[in-house]
Amino acid sequence: MSKRPKALLFDVFGTVVDWRRSIAREIDGMAAARGWDVDGNDFAVRWRKLYQPAMQRIREGNRGFVKLDILHRENLDQVLSDLNITDLSEAEKQDLNRVWHRLAPWPDVVGGLNRMKSRHILATCSNGNIALMVNMAKNMGLPWDMVLGAEVTEAYKPMRECYLGSAAALDLDPGECCMVAAHNEDLAAAQGFGLMTAYVERPTEYSDDGGPFPPTGEWDYVAGDFIELAAQLDG
Amino acid sequence: MSKRPKALLFDVFGTVVDWRRSIAREIDGMAAARGWDVDGNDFAVRWRKLYQPAMQRIREGNRGFVKLDILHRENLDQVLSDLNITDLSEAEKQDLNRVWHRLAPWPDVVGGLNRMKSRHILATCSNGNIALMVNMAKNMGLPWDMVLGAEVTEAYKPMRECYLGSAAALDLDPGECCMVAAHNEDLAAAQGFGLMTAYVERPTEYSDDGGPFPPTGEWDYVAGDFIELAAQLDG
Repeated sequence: MSKRPKALLFDVFGTVVDWRRSIAREIDGMAAARGWDVDGNDFAVRWRKLYQPAMQRIREGNRGFVKLDILHRENLDQVLSDLNITDLSEAEKQDLNRVWHRLAPWPDVVGGLNRMKSRHILATCSNGNIALMVNMAKNMGLPWDMVLGAEVTEAYKPMRECYLGSAAALDLDPGECCMVAAHNEDLAAAQGFGLMTAYVERPTEYSDDGGPFPPTGEWDYVAGDFIELAAQLDG
Repeated sequence: MSKRPKALLFDVFGTVVDWRRSIAREIDGMAAARGWDVDGNDFAVRWRKLYQPAMQRIREGNRGFVKLDILHRENLDQVLSDLNITDLSEAEKQDLNRVWHRLAPWPDVVGGLNRMKSRHILATCSNGNIALMVNMAKNMGLPWDMVLGAEVTEAYKPMRECYLGSAAALDLDPGECCMVAAHNEDLAAAQGFGLMTAYVERPTEYSDDGGPFPPTGEWDYVAGDFIELAAQLDG
């Protein structure tokens, strides 16, 4: 077993929270109330598909850094336009955009994090912005010690600066930090920059049918959920 | 009574933690072990006195932003030199510099913060850097939702950007935030930039004889300690 990491850096969307079903639920509720012919799950997946291309322009230097809340809002306007939804006021769109601040965690998350908290610094290393992460944590009882990642480093994962800037903010070497994610590509980047890695399986992130999304790298930890990861870290 | 603030932004050194007696205790222990003719309280006050001038060079643009841990270290070297202390190794100096990460809170702090936490976002708005604040919180059980202030905004209080950048990171208007501090000048700056203000008395911050340091402005809240402030915020 690897040496115990001082800090755990968490990917959030998909790893900590079930963005797809959280958004689908809100959209299904709005659709029923307003008579939209829209499927909540389809809406959530469309919105999420615009996420990587929006960040990519910034990663490539074709746009200055802006917070994810702003990208989410631009992408929301695109999805609403694609689906011909025209009956939302500006205030309603702003509120809908903040559904990302209200995403629900997977059922093992709060228990697992509370178990990890006494022995590790728990920080987010997400592309989500500070307000999004802080509000989500307050809404859902996520016991982060710190929100790091994109806004603090002004770099979107998988850019080097996002991982190394987060470790540096804690005054830790990369090898004293362990990136926790349900996505092999996130872990591959982190590992390439010298961080430890923990893979957590979230087979239903993208659809109810589930993955499988097996671990594809040599990760330091591989766990079925956060409770199992907490036990491995204690072991 | 003012409307309830969404976020409480806390000054830390002096307001949350008793830096003087925490440092004096460590120095008195070292002095006894090593035979230094040094008074811990005098050492702490000397070290702290170099704090404002060191930040002032950066505020005035005569030096780029560096973290407070670095300024503390430079100032420590100065104090050691002034007191002719020459028997510390580099590793020992590094460890002593991190005494700021181990400062003890005033006795009302943990209870008061835990009472405030359910109804407010609790964030530091200190000149201390992220690692210093996160390590102190882990050591002392301070339940911050977020560390904001100097490192995140790259501006030392009382610069405008430190207060307004901290509010903006939470996606809040300045008037939705309340600065909590034991220092009238910190609150005066915050109020000038549109934040609400809460004064907490810490009469023994600088000496055992105590202040008085009465509130000198029209602050939204004035409290004897964090328990009293929590009760006023709930009222």
